[in-house]
Amino acid sequence: MIEHQDHIVKAYDDELKQLTRWVQEMGDHVLQQYDDAVMAMNTRDDALAARAFTNDNTVDVLEQQLNELALRMLALRQPMAGDLRLIIGAMRIARDLERIGDYAANLAKRARTLNAVPPLSVTNAVVETARLARPIIQEAVSSFIEKDSEKAANALTQDDLIDEAYHQLVRHLIAHMQENPADIATCTQLLFTAKNLERIGDRATNIAETVQFIISGSFLVPVRKKRDLPALGGDA
Amino acid sequence: MIEHQDHIVKAYDDELKQLTRWVQEMGDHVLQQYDDAVMAMNTRDDALAARAFTNDNTVDVLEQQLNELALRMLALRQPMAGDLRLIIGAMRIARDLERIGDYAANLAKRARTLNAVPPLSVTNAVVETARLARPIIQEAVSSFIEKDSEKAANALTQDDLIDEAYHQLVRHLIAHMQENPADIATCTQLLFTAKNLERIGDRATNIAETVQFIISGSFLVPVRKKRDLPALGGDA
Repeated sequence: MIEHQDHIVKAYDDELKQLTRWVQEMGDHVLQQYDDAVMAMNTRDDALAARAFTNDNTVDVLEQQLNELALRMLALRQPMAGDLRLIIGAMRIARDLERIGDYAANLAKRARTLNAVPPLSVTNAVVETARLARPIIQEAVSSFIEKDSEKAANALTQDDLIDEAYHQLVRHLIAHMQENPADIATCTQLLFTAKNLERIGDRATNIAETVQFIISGSFLVPVRKKRDLPALGGDA
Repeated sequence: MIEHQDHIVKAYDDELKQLTRWVQEMGDHVLQQYDDAVMAMNTRDDALAARAFTNDNTVDVLEQQLNELALRMLALRQPMAGDLRLIIGAMRIARDLERIGDYAANLAKRARTLNAVPPLSVTNAVVETARLARPIIQEAVSSFIEKDSEKAANALTQDDLIDEAYHQLVRHLIAHMQENPADIATCTQLLFTAKNLERIGDRATNIAETVQFIISGSFLVPVRKKRDLPALGGDA
């Protein structure tokens, strides 16, 4: 009987670890896709862009596996307190990662569209903003893996940088269009690219908030709330 | 003992109904906010815009209450199968509704920014697209309340209309900017407004997908996947 009990405890423990491993795998995959997309934009590399927007299935499959295991655990293991929050939290984080993957694929697709027209110098500012977003995704994921609330708080703080960079970028793009009306169509692509980066920052923020919930046990009023609405007359 | 058992069953049943009621309340509130935002944009009514972007707290509070009850039920009631999916699904839907509320607040904020400059005729096309999105939100929420998979499927189909209208709107705005460079800053606001509407359609789609999961028990490969990436050279 004790042996049987030990066996159940071990299986349960393995399942919890499996959830964490899948989140890590999703995070690794999404970061790779993001790096490829940004590099494709920076170096005007169509092949790299294609790699980042095709074959996007891995993250979806991982999310589905994670959801199915999480539901099975909820039904059969009766998890309590911290374990319960970990399971619910892993599902939420998987969803945010899956969406970041979608945004990265969309960046790659836009990179390829941008490569079909002469390069604009303003693209550099977009790439710079993309570089700011990367550590936030990484920090948010690793705050989950290590259950590190300081890292989570750090990711939340960093997101302000993206928002600032995003607003600056939009102003920059508007000014560029006003001076070069011939570039309007291309700049519209870049405006949506900028918006994607802001959304990616937002999703990474969600992940960090979920980690704080897993650790603390209380739902926080989302930090993004205060930032999501620009000042009147704001550009985005 | 039987009486005690009955009592537990009734309490559990009441809790499930409570979750559904809160989703309904969130849906009603978000739709009101959305209607106000669209009307504020259509009639250039600053007071209405202000109503739609202030006092946005109700939906957040409802989501938090819903999450807390759902977690308590998962910990204490050991829900199985359909009930488990309903609880998990309600949490997912609450999150999507909360985000639709944020997008509606953002629409209202942009409406007020737009009211500060002379009206552009292209705003009408934005309002028309907004009108297309409304029934999808409503259909998605009521597919949850009524556990109606046909309504959910219907919401998923309708989202294609938004996507089409959105792409058309972006092309329209690009053309308008090219012909009227003086309107570039205002049109950038409208581009992001159009993007918001597309995101709202996407979130409503998420809700309908969650309803299908609650009913069928299997996670579907998201329909939006196929649509999220525009054709090469596409405008968004």
